[in-house]
Amino acid sequence: MTLPITGVYCAAATPVLADLSPNLPAFAAHCRWLIAEGCDGVALLGTTGEANSFSSAERKMILEAALTAGLQPGQLMPGTGVANIPETVDLTRHALAQGVTRVVMLPPFYYKGVSDEGLFAAYSRVIEGVADSRLQVVLYHIPQMSGIAISHDLIERLRAAFPQTVVGIKDSAGKLDNMAAMIARFPGFSVLAGADPLLLPLMKIGGAGSITATSNLVARDLALVYRAANDPAQAGAVDVAQARIDAYRNLSNSYVQLPAIKGMIRYQTGDAGWSHMRPPLVALSDAERNDLRTKLLAIGATVTGN
Amino acid sequence: MTLPITGVYCAAATPVLADLSPNLPAFAAHCRWLIAEGCDGVALLGTTGEANSFSSAERKMILEAALTAGLQPGQLMPGTGVANIPETVDLTRHALAQGVTRVVMLPPFYYKGVSDEGLFAAYSRVIEGVADSRLQVVLYHIPQMSGIAISHDLIERLRAAFPQTVVGIKDSAGKLDNMAAMIARFPGFSVLAGADPLLLPLMKIGGAGSITATSNLVARDLALVYRAANDPAQAGAVDVAQARIDAYRNLSNSYVQLPAIKGMIRYQTGDAGWSHMRPPLVALSDAERNDLRTKLLAIGATVTGN
Repeated sequence: MTLPITGVYCAAATPVLADLSPNLPAFAAHCRWLIAEGCDGVALLGTTGEANSFSSAERKMILEAALTAGLQPGQLMPGTGVANIPETVDLTRHALAQGVTRVVMLPPFYYKGVSDEGLFAAYSRVIEGVADSRLQVVLYHIPQMSGIAISHDLIERLRAAFPQTVVGIKDSAGKLDNMAAMIARFPGFSVLAGADPLLLPLMKIGGAGSITATSNLVARDLALVYRAANDPAQAGAVDVAQARIDAYRNLSNSYVQLPAIKGMIRYQTGDAGWSHMRPPLVALSDAERNDLRTKLLAIGATVTGN
Repeated sequence: MTLPITGVYCAAATPVLADLSPNLPAFAAHCRWLIAEGCDGVALLGTTGEANSFSSAERKMILEAALTAGLQPGQLMPGTGVANIPETVDLTRHALAQGVTRVVMLPPFYYKGVSDEGLFAAYSRVIEGVADSRLQVVLYHIPQMSGIAISHDLIERLRAAFPQTVVGIKDSAGKLDNMAAMIARFPGFSVLAGADPLLLPLMKIGGAGSITATSNLVARDLALVYRAANDPAQAGAVDVAQARIDAYRNLSNSYVQLPAIKGMIRYQTGDAGWSHMRPPLVALSDAERNDLRTKLLAIGATVTGN
């Protein structure tokens, strides 16, 4: 069965200036580079993009900057889910007004222990509030951060109510079993891996692709894994690419992940400003950053700047 | 040592209409009633108030409705902390522009596992962004909901940096030991109980008061406990009041707490509209509501309506 959303999407990091305002030119350049490297699209304003550390006004500016940079609306998949419904509706309608019809949507994430009935009501109110038949929603399962799991029963209920709208899920919980179960239970539903090491096994069982943080660094390798996962003739090249993906991923996870991703982009671009983080996240310390630089060289990365 | 903020504050519930928009007249009436019952103030737009289920625009309307209802700015202590800093600054400045100088402030709550350094940076940026010497901040420790604990080291650092501004904490984690340790370590810092059963023991060890959900129902009893906690001559009256507080509290916690609080206000006011909840929270089922009604009668409540 054809899947509605497929490919390698980058959970793009968002550069900020020293005053922590979005660095829109640097973001535009990064988006163009990601597409040039082989990403099918940019899933901006997700967890890696520090989206929930930006105001609604800033989020809109960031999305518009990607379009101004020349990306096509169909290449963009912004996160639009915040803790309250009216602003989730507003951000989603803003995306649609720009022609961007696909969004990744967190459940409301302040209250914990809420029922599937409550989450169904929340997603339903957002979709009905947006009231645009073009909308395609990718649910966002990242319970370790949001505190809210997306259950399979909730997916079934949402698909039944909004079959043209609720078309996929980003699963960032890191368990292949959960993704396999969704693929089996929901034909035609796009299951996207949120963790880089799982793209390859996911593609072997009918997954749709990935939305991952390491693609800020190794999009070309992820694109190769995505396209060649099931081609025995390319197994060697796939293994090499996957090994490089895993090396970057393991390196980022040996620090706090998001500052490490931005630290790696700093050395990739030579722009020291990429290190800045929005609180409550903080940049790597100088010692960590120097250590990261040394380890990047050790895994064969081209490093620019100190 | 004199404490900067003292008394019994109600973590006020926020009534909504059938379309889930704020019911401002009902909220105004509820605020006036809470003061008449003996609350020193209303801590609106907290967890019980479903604050994070409202947009910034709605939150501002709700605060303004309380002022229009005749409450004094000094009687109001709104929650202004959202996941991002710019909107936290904006909500806090809005409060100050109305003359409301005391706020309860959640830490940024999307990212989990963040460092004290990051939380210090976040609170610092908010306080510096607000840039108003009148501001008094009550930190909000409710890790079971926000996923973010306020450590004692963070409090110490914030008090050192902003001694006139960071003046207290609402501790909703329900552990008296943690409150006792803060009272001992931080002279002149207002430690407010977020759980009703702890007001009495807290007042015996130098606590500042309470911000609790059950005060939507039994503010008069809480006010008595607050004022007479250390008066042996009133020990009997205090015990009666505390028993009633505990009965309401236990009843609300035998369902999902927030819908149960609203269900009890429904029967207190006779206004069935009080049952409505903003998703992801949902109202009690009809069966639960009827059960609640029966149990309210059993604990001696005056019940209006079916």
